[in-house]
Amino acid sequence: MTPPAVRPNMGEGDLRDGRIGQAQMRSANLGLLLRHLREHGGRTRAQLAAETGLSKGTTSTLVGDLVERGLVREDGPTRDGTVGRPGLVVHLDGRGVVGMGLEITEDHITLVATDLAGTALRESVTPLDVRHQPIETVLDRVAGTLDRSIESLRAQGMHVVGLTVSPPGVIDYDSGTVRFAPNLGWRDLPLAAHLVARLPATQPPLHLENDAKAAAVAEFAGRSRDGIRDLVFLTGNTGVGAGIIAGGQLSRGWAGFSGEVGHLPLDPSCRTCNCGRTACWELCVGVNELFRLVVGADDSGGDTGPSIDARLSTIHARAARGDQHTLAALAEIADNLAIGMSVIVDVLNPRLIVLGGYFARFSEFLLDPVLRTLRTREMAAGSRVELAASQLGLMATARGGALLALESVFADPGLVGPPA
Amino acid sequence: MTPPAVRPNMGEGDLRDGRIGQAQMRSANLGLLLRHLREHGGRTRAQLAAETGLSKGTTSTLVGDLVERGLVREDGPTRDGTVGRPGLVVHLDGRGVVGMGLEITEDHITLVATDLAGTALRESVTPLDVRHQPIETVLDRVAGTLDRSIESLRAQGMHVVGLTVSPPGVIDYDSGTVRFAPNLGWRDLPLAAHLVARLPATQPPLHLENDAKAAAVAEFAGRSRDGIRDLVFLTGNTGVGAGIIAGGQLSRGWAGFSGEVGHLPLDPSCRTCNCGRTACWELCVGVNELFRLVVGADDSGGDTGPSIDARLSTIHARAARGDQHTLAALAEIADNLAIGMSVIVDVLNPRLIVLGGYFARFSEFLLDPVLRTLRTREMAAGSRVELAASQLGLMATARGGALLALESVFADPGLVGPPA
Repeated sequence: MTPPAVRPNMGEGDLRDGRIGQAQMRSANLGLLLRHLREHGGRTRAQLAAETGLSKGTTSTLVGDLVERGLVREDGPTRDGTVGRPGLVVHLDGRGVVGMGLEITEDHITLVATDLAGTALRESVTPLDVRHQPIETVLDRVAGTLDRSIESLRAQGMHVVGLTVSPPGVIDYDSGTVRFAPNLGWRDLPLAAHLVARLPATQPPLHLENDAKAAAVAEFAGRSRDGIRDLVFLTGNTGVGAGIIAGGQLSRGWAGFSGEVGHLPLDPSCRTCNCGRTACWELCVGVNELFRLVVGADDSGGDTGPSIDARLSTIHARAARGDQHTLAALAEIADNLAIGMSVIVDVLNPRLIVLGGYFARFSEFLLDPVLRTLRTREMAAGSRVELAASQLGLMATARGGALLALESVFADPGLVGPPA
Repeated sequence: MTPPAVRPNMGEGDLRDGRIGQAQMRSANLGLLLRHLREHGGRTRAQLAAETGLSKGTTSTLVGDLVERGLVREDGPTRDGTVGRPGLVVHLDGRGVVGMGLEITEDHITLVATDLAGTALRESVTPLDVRHQPIETVLDRVAGTLDRSIESLRAQGMHVVGLTVSPPGVIDYDSGTVRFAPNLGWRDLPLAAHLVARLPATQPPLHLENDAKAAAVAEFAGRSRDGIRDLVFLTGNTGVGAGIIAGGQLSRGWAGFSGEVGHLPLDPSCRTCNCGRTACWELCVGVNELFRLVVGADDSGGDTGPSIDARLSTIHARAARGDQHTLAALAEIADNLAIGMSVIVDVLNPRLIVLGGYFARFSEFLLDPVLRTLRTREMAAGSRVELAASQLGLMATARGGALLALESVFADPGLVGPPA
């Protein structure tokens, strides 16, 4: 009963007016083959034909086209099943095709460039005190980082097809504006226009995406071969936000405000938040709460480190050697974390929640107690949520941005011409 | 950058292995035209060609096919724009093609049959004390109601293409089992198999869908022409659950447990719920809480009525004439309602929340105070959620079930042969 259909582009959302005329069929089917290889790994032309429903002749013509564009390569020969002649295996390639993602946080910017197969070509983290620098300086630094990276990749013969810039805030996608990023102090900042004005005219298309949503895309890409279609990524920095993948689709909400779970009213101490509300969940689970809790009467080390990163290293070392005060602080964080995560579970029923930021770094102290609480709340067998710490570390958001920038090629491989 | 694509069937969820070969193109494009007419209303062949990207020749052939199957009709002539010859207007028809939905609640079963255009052909509500009757009796009654309705529609020459049965519980879609319906006392009930065994072999395909999810589909169908793609339907009975439409897609969660918001831990009195947890939100907003609150020292009327419906009528009449005790009870319900709805807003960012059940019936007392609370929590302009009372009343869930049963025809119009 499933209708024949091109799998919608994950980053594109709604396709209500999708259509297939003869003219669009070729490009749609090129994309179909490319996405099939991304999702299921290398296979022969014969397997591709059988699995996609395309005829063998059409499949061969299309694979030839993709080879010419440098988007796939053929290896082999290998035996295709147990009988018949050996066939070449078609693999996703696109080594010369690059997407770029850049994350802006309070205290650093992270850049990741990947090729079409998701292989990282560049990863960098640059300290930048975004909150206390003038906005012009921040914009200049971000644009400069993008520009230098694009130029350097181009000098190596790479084709950079798109850029995604991700702040920890809500995006107005149509206008390229950051509506609200409370922890950067930004409101209604036309970030895309500011950056485009600072970049040369030859820049690739630039889009914005929220940090949690971009990170969710990166985690989903890494796990979709396990059959996971419903996943939530939880950021764990000063702010806490969720990126939601539901049924294999990124859910942005109608105005981009989905996943604003950091502002659920769950803080037992009812403090006031940067967002203007009180009792926001991130006040009792964000990284500043950890810093607050570890500062004891006999211990002021928690808040004197030179950077968030260094402070977290100190705290982690104390927890690892069994410091009771630090472990008690982490236990309190875990208790508060479980409360909000159970809300996410009740509303969304994800298969997996991936914890990012400092939650991932402290996962050996947080995951088990949180999971125990979630298990006591299970309503029925078979609905079990799993938890995992992000393996992508500081790179998750920027990597997701790079992958989102590559979606345009998976939607329409014709964007990439054959090499001159 | 939007890829050419068949719009996915709303009820089908994930389409990761979708494909288009020449062989499937005709059926895919028949479905495309049918869905385009459903969504945008009647238009000429020329408009259909222009809007879908299909060639005029192909469009004409396909429209001819759909006319032959009785799925569309042509009216007119009318002027197509300001110049050129008058064209016939193609309308969704399918008057002989029927989907059927049946809702099972604690105290009644509701049946709705609609034709392809969504016009109701049958609506019935039958009292049935599901909680206190033996399950065999309940199953016999439900199957009997379905069977009589199918036979009666067939006798009128109708083609019933599918059935959806909706209990207030979580569904395992693969096995047709109700995993958990706490307010009916059901757990792991293979409802589909029990009903199929009671129906003649000529029955149409039967599927299960959760009550809130089916109702969300009905509300979404009625509002998608307004451009609403992110909508939540909130049931308001003994239980409270959410049906989630995100980006135009029904979100079921990985195991069907999405939208279990009635069991969020938000009850200030921390009572124990039928589900086994404590402090579930539905305990402080469900209909039983209203009944409990309206029973005052000098007023025992609230809990003596012969049925839920009659008791609600009495309470509504009191509120309408300004009874302070009743209005205070409704104000308390509104306060508790706003707390859970703000959670839904923070996680999902819906454009619209539609209130069903008794919330809809008491909407003039509930909507404004709830909206006031939600407005105070807005983080930024432009993310404003709207509230509406369901206009579908008791029929919402069964109507959604009927529409879901018709999705198979929109996915593959070839299922319906031309009339003999």
